[in-house]
Amino acid sequence: MTSERKLEHLLICNQRDVEYRGKSTGFEDIELIHKALPEVDKEGIDVSIDFFGKKLDIPLIISAITGGHPAATKINRELAKAADELNIGMGVGSQRAAVENKELIPTYSVVRENAPSAFIIGNIGAPQIEYAEAAAGMIEADALAIHLNTLQEAIQPEGDIDARGYVESIEKIADIIDMPIIAKETGAGISKSEAVTLEKAGVNAIDVAGSGGTSWAAVETYRAKEDYIGNLFWDWGIPTAASTVEVCESVNIPVISSGGIRSGLDAAKALALGAECVGIALPLLKEAYTGYESVVKKVEEFKESLKIAMFLVGANNVKELRNCDLLIRGKTREWLTERGIDTKKYARRI
Amino acid sequence: MTSERKLEHLLICNQRDVEYRGKSTGFEDIELIHKALPEVDKEGIDVSIDFFGKKLDIPLIISAITGGHPAATKINRELAKAADELNIGMGVGSQRAAVENKELIPTYSVVRENAPSAFIIGNIGAPQIEYAEAAAGMIEADALAIHLNTLQEAIQPEGDIDARGYVESIEKIADIIDMPIIAKETGAGISKSEAVTLEKAGVNAIDVAGSGGTSWAAVETYRAKEDYIGNLFWDWGIPTAASTVEVCESVNIPVISSGGIRSGLDAAKALALGAECVGIALPLLKEAYTGYESVVKKVEEFKESLKIAMFLVGANNVKELRNCDLLIRGKTREWLTERGIDTKKYARRI
Amino acid sequence: MTSERKLEHLLICNQRDVEYRGKSTGFEDIELIHKALPEVDKEGIDVSIDFFGKKLDIPLIISAITGGHPAATKINRELAKAADELNIGMGVGSQRAAVENKELIPTYSVVRENAPSAFIIGNIGAPQIEYAEAAAGMIEADALAIHLNTLQEAIQPEGDIDARGYVESIEKIADIIDMPIIAKETGAGISKSEAVTLEKAGVNAIDVAGSGGTSWAAVETYRAKEDYIGNLFWDWGIPTAASTVEVCESVNIPVISSGGIRSGLDAAKALALGAECVGIALPLLKEAYTGYESVVKKVEEFKESLKIAMFLVGANNVKELRNCDLLIRGKTREWLTERGIDTKKYARRI
Amino acid sequence: MTSERKLEHLLICNQRDVEYRGKSTGFEDIELIHKALPEVDKEGIDVSIDFFGKKLDIPLIISAITGGHPAATKINRELAKAADELNIGMGVGSQRAAVENKELIPTYSVVRENAPSAFIIGNIGAPQIEYAEAAAGMIEADALAIHLNTLQEAIQPEGDIDARGYVESIEKIADIIDMPIIAKETGAGISKSEAVTLEKAGVNAIDVAGSGGTSWAAVETYRAKEDYIGNLFWDWGIPTAASTVEVCESVNIPVISSGGIRSGLDAAKALALGAECVGIALPLLKEAYTGYESVVKKVEEFKESLKIAMFLVGANNVKELRNCDLLIRGKTREWLTERGIDTKKYARRI
Ligand SMILES: Cc1cc2nc3c(=O)[nH]c(=O)nc-3n(C[C@H](O)[C@H](O)[C@H](O)COP(=O)(O)O)c2cc1C
Ligand SMILES: Cc1cc2nc3c(=O)[nH]c(=O)nc-3n(C[C@H](O)[C@H](O)[C@H](O)COP(=O)(O)O)c2cc1C
Ligand SMILES: Cc1cc2nc3c(=O)[nH]c(=O)nc-3n(C[C@H](O)[C@H](O)[C@H](O)COP(=O)(O)O)c2cc1C
Ligand SMILES: Cc1cc2nc3c(=O)[nH]c(=O)nc-3n(C[C@H](O)[C@H](O)[C@H](O)COP(=O)(O)O)c2cc1C
Repeated sequence: MTSERKLEHLLICNQRDVEYRGKSTGFEDIELIHKALPEVDKEGIDVSIDFFGKKLDIPLIISAITGGHPAATKINRELAKAADELNIGMGVGSQRAAVENKELIPTYSVVRENAPSAFIIGNIGAPQIEYAEAAAGMIEADALAIHLNTLQEAIQPEGDIDARGYVESIEKIADIIDMPIIAKETGAGISKSEAVTLEKAGVNAIDVAGSGGTSWAAVETYRAKEDYIGNLFWDWGIPTAASTVEVCESVNIPVISSGGIRSGLDAAKALALGAECVGIALPLLKEAYTGYESVVKKVEEFKESLKIAMFLVGANNVKELRNCDLLIRGKTREWLTERGIDTKKYARRI
Repeated sequence: MTSERKLEHLLICNQRDVEYRGKSTGFEDIELIHKALPEVDKEGIDVSIDFFGKKLDIPLIISAITGGHPAATKINRELAKAADELNIGMGVGSQRAAVENKELIPTYSVVRENAPSAFIIGNIGAPQIEYAEAAAGMIEADALAIHLNTLQEAIQPEGDIDARGYVESIEKIADIIDMPIIAKETGAGISKSEAVTLEKAGVNAIDVAGSGGTSWAAVETYRAKEDYIGNLFWDWGIPTAASTVEVCESVNIPVISSGGIRSGLDAAKALALGAECVGIALPLLKEAYTGYESVVKKVEEFKESLKIAMFLVGANNVKELRNCDLLIRGKTREWLTERGIDTKKYARRI
Repeated sequence: MTSERKLEHLLICNQRDVEYRGKSTGFEDIELIHKALPEVDKEGIDVSIDFFGKKLDIPLIISAITGGHPAATKINRELAKAADELNIGMGVGSQRAAVENKELIPTYSVVRENAPSAFIIGNIGAPQIEYAEAAAGMIEADALAIHLNTLQEAIQPEGDIDARGYVESIEKIADIIDMPIIAKETGAGISKSEAVTLEKAGVNAIDVAGSGGTSWAAVETYRAKEDYIGNLFWDWGIPTAASTVEVCESVNIPVISSGGIRSGLDAAKALALGAECVGIALPLLKEAYTGYESVVKKVEEFKESLKIAMFLVGANNVKELRNCDLLIRGKTREWLTERGIDTKKYARRI
Repeated sequence: MTSERKLEHLLICNQRDVEYRGKSTGFEDIELIHKALPEVDKEGIDVSIDFFGKKLDIPLIISAITGGHPAATKINRELAKAADELNIGMGVGSQRAAVENKELIPTYSVVRENAPSAFIIGNIGAPQIEYAEAAAGMIEADALAIHLNTLQEAIQPEGDIDARGYVESIEKIADIIDMPIIAKETGAGISKSEAVTLEKAGVNAIDVAGSGGTSWAAVETYRAKEDYIGNLFWDWGIPTAASTVEVCESVNIPVISSGGIRSGLDAAKALALGAECVGIALPLLKEAYTGYESVVKKVEEFKESLKIAMFLVGANNVKELRNCDLLIRGKTREWLTERGIDTKKYARRI
């Protein structure tokens, strides 16, 4: 059943329009301010980051996508080969299926086999305390993500809609597991208050996975018998740009900005807003269907556009990018101002 | 004559576009802020409220619609059956006709007959002091609504356009009648100052019935010989979201938010803004034409979407919903700010 | 030559699109706030005003339009008959032609002949000091308007583009002439500073004639050989709503709001912003082509919609209308805020 | 190779859509406030300025466009003849090609030959210290522009993407060269901080060349094999109006406003914001293809519309224009406010 669902998700995401419709990430409201005198050699720009002790050559993680169905094996293999070649991070999809049914393990372990040295991230749900070690072990994970996906569960007919005890459960996982724990939304974003709760619960990083990219209400709308509820909540959630700022301003742990990141220019904006790195799922899933070279090509394009943005704002590396001037406008400015965050300081850093 | 008009209203509302055109409720400006860690079991969410001593299983009232014409009997019966089954509130249309012409009483009393235990609300105009008791008695009302509908009267060819003495008249009704009195607009909304006047006059609840849903200027435009004036005032009135906030911030009596409420998501926003419950007329009238099962189905959908919204913001019950974070944006923010209401506090409750 | 031009103006205005394209009056930004308890009898609403000692039954002046060409005689006669019947004000077009060529006098004096008791306003240009008495005498004027129309002159091929000495000239006219002097723009609006200058110069009223209605750059564009310049300045000027507020806030003389006033609802907004009365040109010119009954019908519609607006905000008369609550939004709010005018006070009068 | 490229640039700019798509100059946000009493004789308006000791009859410079390819000779000749006749300024395109290859000198020197008395501006890149004297000499330049064009270089396949040492290099050129040095962007604009750096480095004027007109990312997109990156950065840069204000507020040297200036009305706004004069490239290049009379006609139109704008705001000369009231709205207001610049003072000068 779960396995079947995984396949449906892959197919729907590959073939249908599953992105937010009436809401965008807010990155179109972010304007990096051109520096006519960058004093930078573009060739020398260093886009690498140190991520929990490992170097990523590009500040990019392939967000958690799949596993748990034979069809997922191919996707995971292509993504893993690309991740290894590019030396970027990669997350696997929820591992519950494989912990419960060992026959499905190869659909996940294919990732470590094809990416022996890349930064690989496991994936479990918040209540699955006892699955944590098995999940991490199955792929020799460098970190473990705990996904938060109440929007999907609420729309999904067979969804798990008891979200009590999540915080306590996250605390326990953080206690048990001896590797970085990443709390990760799946498209509806994380607010200030939730970020603070998560940091207190002991997680080591937060992946905001905000709104504007893949909408899980959308995906489940295609699976549901009646589409009224799914359509109503299609655009629910905190836009990624706003969520990124909310979280960066409230915690002292690394923040992954994701949800609708579609180019290196988006990434440059996310990093300039304070993120450690970014995550991308949907566009790379589509490339994975074609093969790992397509994934590599897409990421190279991403890297090139990130570097151009850095060149144009005079940033030799990601740290410098985080200090460049940027403007926060329109709806994102309104969001942050109402929430008590001063946008002006971002426009007056230099 | 009045009877004839009632029929025309029903037909026009069922067949023509009678909603606001250039103005919306403002609920699209309200953004409930997603809580990735709701710590709520959706199954356990309690959407019931206590309304003047009776429990409503859903914080919903079928707004005053009809009575006074044979065709209204069926509508009222279907709505009443649904209200009783769902245990929600229901208002009847203006009862003047039946007080003046006893033959029409069955078109109203059908409601209590088919909803022996539901919360039923009578309906009279402000000047009709001497009709109050008869109206309430006719349906064994749990409360009596006094409708305010100057916009309709002004556009209606045969309208009653002397609005002097309303406040005094309302005071008298409140004095005489031994049940909760609800002052109710009919689509043009209630402002701060009017809310204060009404509370002082002794009413026990205010139904804002703001702009963005059914427009009574629109309805009367279809009935009028010349449509110039009706078109000009089609969009007159205070949008429901703004009206809800204005009234909730100025009085200490329960506020019913209505006028263009079209889903449980709209309702969640209205409740989070401070309303006690919401009212819906037009969409339920349309279902009533099909039959009471359609009304029930529509309301179940409403309830489900309200519960999902509550789940996603971490509200176990309506009281908790009133304390969740929400953003007020765009035109509604502009409206409230100009009027002296601080919108930021709603965005920073947690 | 001038005479010929007058005809061309009439024809162009009647047949072509001569209104502002990319700019509106700003009245769509003004929202009169509905009062659910108006405590007013609509039948008893008094829309009359006292205007320089004469009563106008409706706070409306037919703005200066024409004279100086045989074709103008008919227009002026129809408008005058309507003005007299309705007991409203009426301005004639620039009288220079008739002062210079006595044969043209009848095209103006037809107004007083057909409107023996209406408030009639003469019209001259700022430099025409020595024409003032003749102009006023020709129509037994109740007041004399001095038009300011630099936009038109600048676009008009044969335009008078020396605008030096206007202020001094206005002072002299105000000195010489023993009747109310009205300084009047012709569609580009009057700013705070100009209003102060005009008041100091001794004028007794200001007609803002702002942007959003008839554009004189537009009219002259149709007459010009090349339309580049006319198109470029088509939308030049201060929108009427903003101009009305700027002027009302800076002077202590009566303000006429005009330029794009198209209904009694617009008028209600203008009066609520502080104007003494409003002026309308283009739409009444079009009715005048049909005949005076059409003008009367149009104005009756205007009066009815003004009264409905007053009824809905609870104003028994124009004075009360000036104290009702209203919202200033969008571009008009931005305009006034930047200019140092507090818009919030209009939203919090009650 | 360079020569070839120059030809391609000319052809692309003449035939394709190379202007910004999703971003405008921001001049549409600037509203000069109409003055009903200008007290100005339009015939007497003086639009001339003194520019580094020479008089320009119109405050306009034909921005740097071309040279270095035989096809450029004609363009430069036509532009030069017009510049001389009109007594305005003119820049030549980057002179690197001719310094490196003396055969190409005539494609530049044609300018001085055809414009013996006009203000002519040489053009080199920031690193080309040793080319400065030769470039200036080649055209008997009145000033030397140092172009800053990192956006173009970044998108251009063969681009020079090492931007280190530019500031030092500019300092040196300013030291060596005995004529006014103008730092000039090429369409992406100059920010506050860069303006301050440039002034400190010793430049004598800044040409902001902001975004909204010709986009060099666009031009290079047409030349590139793959258009992904070019499209992504098509709209990169600081809009001209915002850049003009940022620079005018931060330095004490003359500012040239350019990038998307398309009429004398745009120019009037730029001057009122504080610019010394404006520059135009693309539209004049297009006229130059037709011949110098077309350039002259276009500039005469420009001059006429500038004078009308000045007439309507009551400015007898450019200095007075700089003190007129203007409104900064919309996105430009948001930009400047976030950046710490008070827009209100521009609206309250009088
Ligand atoms: C087919 C598919 C499956 C996914 N499965 C998971 C999952 O199992 N666990 C998880 O944390 N996120 C999952 N996600 C969410 C992504 O990791 C990501 O947060 C989200 O898609 C937003 O990023 P995007 O807009 O770049 O797609 C999935 C996404 C897709 C498209
Ligand atoms: C056909 C029809 C008849 C109505 N009659 C009454 C009435 O008699 N008394 C009253 O208070 N409101 C009456 N209303 C107004 C509704 O109660 C409600 O306030 C208004 O329609 C706005 O809600 P809606 O947008 O959900 O329709 C009527 C509405 C409709 C559609
Ligand atoms: C055909 C025509 C002729 C006009 N002639 C004059 C005039 O001679 N003197 C004057 O002060 N205004 C004149 N106006 C301007 C009007 O009085 C008024 O200020 C302007 O048209 C804006 O109002 P509206 O939008 O209602 O037309 C004329 C307007 C029109 C349409
Ligand atoms: C065909 C063409 C060639 C250009 N070459 C140069 C150049 O060599 N040096 C330079 O400083 N600017 C150059 N520019 C940029 C212009 O000087 C100007 O800054 C830019 O085009 C923006 O102005 P516009 O929108 O009026 O075209 C060139 C522009 C065009 C259209």
